[in-house]
Amino acid sequence: MLLPSPLEAFRRGIGQVLRTGLSPAFEASTATSTAAAAVRRECRAGALTGRTVGLAPGHAQANLVCVPKEHAFDFARFCLLNPRPCPLLAIASTPTDLPPALATGADLARDLPRYRVWRDGVPADDVTDASHVWTGDNLTGFLLGCSFSWEQALADAGHPPRHFVDGTNVSMYVTDVPNAVSGPFGGKLVVSMRPYAPEAVPAVAALTGAYPAAHGGPIHWGDASALGIADLAEPTFGDAVRVEPGEVAVFWACGVTPQSALAEAALPLCVTHAPGHMFVCDLTDEALRV
Amino acid sequence: MLLPSPLEAFRRGIGQVLRTGLSPAFEASTATSTAAAAVRRECRAGALTGRTVGLAPGHAQANLVCVPKEHAFDFARFCLLNPRPCPLLAIASTPTDLPPALATGADLARDLPRYRVWRDGVPADDVTDASHVWTGDNLTGFLLGCSFSWEQALADAGHPPRHFVDGTNVSMYVTDVPNAVSGPFGGKLVVSMRPYAPEAVPAVAALTGAYPAAHGGPIHWGDASALGIADLAEPTFGDAVRVEPGEVAVFWACGVTPQSALAEAALPLCVTHAPGHMFVCDLTDEALRV
Repeated sequence: MLLPSPLEAFRRGIGQVLRTGLSPAFEASTATSTAAAAVRRECRAGALTGRTVGLAPGHAQANLVCVPKEHAFDFARFCLLNPRPCPLLAIASTPTDLPPALATGADLARDLPRYRVWRDGVPADDVTDASHVWTGDNLTGFLLGCSFSWEQALADAGHPPRHFVDGTNVSMYVTDVPNAVSGPFGGKLVVSMRPYAPEAVPAVAALTGAYPAAHGGPIHWGDASALGIADLAEPTFGDAVRVEPGEVAVFWACGVTPQSALAEAALPLCVTHAPGHMFVCDLTDEALRV
Repeated sequence: MLLPSPLEAFRRGIGQVLRTGLSPAFEASTATSTAAAAVRRECRAGALTGRTVGLAPGHAQANLVCVPKEHAFDFARFCLLNPRPCPLLAIASTPTDLPPALATGADLARDLPRYRVWRDGVPADDVTDASHVWTGDNLTGFLLGCSFSWEQALADAGHPPRHFVDGTNVSMYVTDVPNAVSGPFGGKLVVSMRPYAPEAVPAVAALTGAYPAAHGGPIHWGDASALGIADLAEPTFGDAVRVEPGEVAVFWACGVTPQSALAEAALPLCVTHAPGHMFVCDLTDEALRV
């Protein structure tokens, strides 16, 4: 018996976002997610202003970066030159310009729980609605994949991230690794860290490597000083997590990286999600797995 | 024993192009390929003007599309909206602006064997050197992945593409599937076709699906009319290939798709590779496998 062809899903745009072929996720992804839409609706109503971890399980969450329209090409190229920290899922010319496969009926300026408004490269405000600053096509929005897409899969495979178990936020560090530069955008790579037993590293690397649209596999493990990190107990963002004796620190490129680029670019106005306060997509995590 | 960390390759930009984690290709890709560089050198000298299939085996080949600088953002967004036919490997602001991981010392305006110059949406000239029209930053170049990257792997796995065996060019068809539109760029999806026994389709789909940067898995198999193709024996480009009794036609998104968009956009000047005359990268095919 011949398997059903994925053409219908491709025509509906799902196969486009996936970038991959045959996947059990095709069918699941073609319907709008009630759970994801509900999260976005609550954000828009101002009823949900907290972090999105664990919400609408199974649905991809995304980092948001908005830059002035005149710098949009340079930022698109920045993402392409730095695809590990900045895996591009979509470019939105206006807040409602999104591929239906990613989310239907969404407004990127209102459907995240919390935004960070940057002025001259400095976080100036955290707000729960960005429609007063992202008013149309003055800014161009970029949605980037997020490691949330594989953390549950790690747990399901018997390799739960430590911060999952501890109920804390993942540790993030600014490294000394320069990003590839495009126009005004540069800055340093930001990484997230999860400790594992050395014998778990191959499996953890293989599992996360199957999600290139969500940072892919680790970029380093072992000696933190090789990344210019002086003290694992002092993360730049998030919480310090326990590293047990005999464990090794494993580092992934992180979606906070563009915020390092924005700080350096010092543009008059940019908008990002506030850390941990992500955009919840209809698209499933599974659909991002190659 | 802990595996070596991929950090060194990441710092050198290889991990960036890969978009994936752990790969045996990391080390192999860090050196400039003598074979690939030799092909580019022969092109530049005018000594090589024919098709590139089979040259520098194991090294990725890429489609080239150059559009006027003022349309570069729209075309980048077009690729992102249509990643199956247009998997972006790099954006070049000038002919020599390439990530070192992709190719070192290359000149995109001279290092392909043959170019197609488009004027007002019509192929006007085929030339072996494009440096007289791509003079600097007047055009922006886009390199897109190519199915050549997995055809040898298919053969190695016991599923050689028919045109491989026959020594002909793959069949390509313009479909009735509209591309997602960005600015002036739209047009129709172009597909390549390889016939297989129905029982081979799952393996063929899985193998090619592991190369999202080279069009990924098939977008359809079976009834060609579902794609608006009236007669498989009459491909729009390339050669007709034998479809044996009991075989099914399997269709992949094709890198000729942007040329359909260029025709529709009818811009004063664009440049592409001439079909089959690709850019040969230092980057290995293996490095594109997730």
